Amino acid sequence: MKELELQKAFTLIEPGPVTMISTRGRDGRPNAMTLTWITVLDWGPTFALCTGPWNYSYEALVSEKECVVNIATADMLETILKVGTCTGREVDKFAKFGLTEVKGSKVTAPIIGECWASVECKVVDHVERHNIFVLEGVKAWHNPDHKDKRLLHAIGDGTFTADGEVFHRRAEMGEKLPPAV
Amino acid sequence: MKELELQKAFTLIEPGPVTMISTRGRDGRPNAMTLTWITVLDWGPTFALCTGPWNYSYEALVSEKECVVNIATADMLETILKVGTCTGREVDKFAKFGLTEVKGSKVTAPIIGECWASVECKVVDHVERHNIFVLEGVKAWHNPDHKDKRLLHAIGDGTFTADGEVFHRRAEMGEKLPPAV
Repeated sequence: MKELELQKAFTLIEPGPVTMISTRGRDGRPNAMTLTWITVLDWGPTFALCTGPWNYSYEALVSEKECVVNIATADMLETILKVGTCTGREVDKFAKFGLTEVKGSKVTAPIIGECWASVECKVVDHVERHNIFVLEGVKAWHNPDHKDKRLLHAIGDGTFTADGEVFHRRAEMGEKLPPAV
Repeated sequence: MKELELQKAFTLIEPGPVTMISTRGRDGRPNAMTLTWITVLDWGPTFALCTGPWNYSYEALVSEKECVVNIATADMLETILKVGTCTGREVDKFAKFGLTEVKGSKVTAPIIGECWASVECKVVDHVERHNIFVLEGVKAWHNPDHKDKRLLHAIGDGTFTADGEVFHRRAEMGEKLPPAV
């Protein structure tokens, strides 16, 4: 994994990919959940993620106040399905699904080595009435050699799409783009 | 436009598409903004959208407490670029860009007739410290005859992608899917 400028971290989340949120519980166990309910809140690395007590990762987010947002790609469809359909309460997902724990530099939550890119995040607020965790990215990584860089998008009914045609329209966006990207 | 079951409205937002948020100001003028900073908050039609006072639509969201979330598709790239790079303070975007105002059934904000699908929404909360508007969908529509149903995703650096390969994995999702979809 190579460092990615933190100012570019929002470009990993803005397209609406399927992510895996990795955490480490108070007991030291690593865990991951598949999640698509996340949005950018700013051109800085600030994100809002939605999850609640029904999810085992919730406990670690509340107690440890950190996580890693890992970006899945189309070649990882089987993994995100497996990770998303069982609970860390019963399963050691890293062991069972062969996920590689990579040590982060700013958080103790593990980076998932198989992902294309990852953002180490601190939980900076918890808007409990809407099950929103506000995250601030503190370090970003990407693997330039990751073969399949097509993001996955979840429709929510069991259908997923991968990125297809690409359009480069930077010139027309002009001053609407933040200077750092 | 045909009615879409409200329980399926989240499937329009979950994949992370580029949207156009349409509003009608206190003065009766329609407006629209291009927006990708939006996420599902629930399997019900509850969404969180991020915008602030720097955006002209903000005033209408605050004063009228309603909007329509319109889903753009790949054939609408030119439109979302035009709508996204000027302000309703200076431009009547519906007139200038040939957008069709379709009357909604539950909100006075206009549906954009050119879009593939639209969700009429009420603003049910405003988390000001994070510029988050919480929306509740009250009526959903889609156009089954819309030719290009590929969603658009914004990277945030002037690059956009359209949906490509599709994967049907309903069977593996099992009980993780809400019953209505």
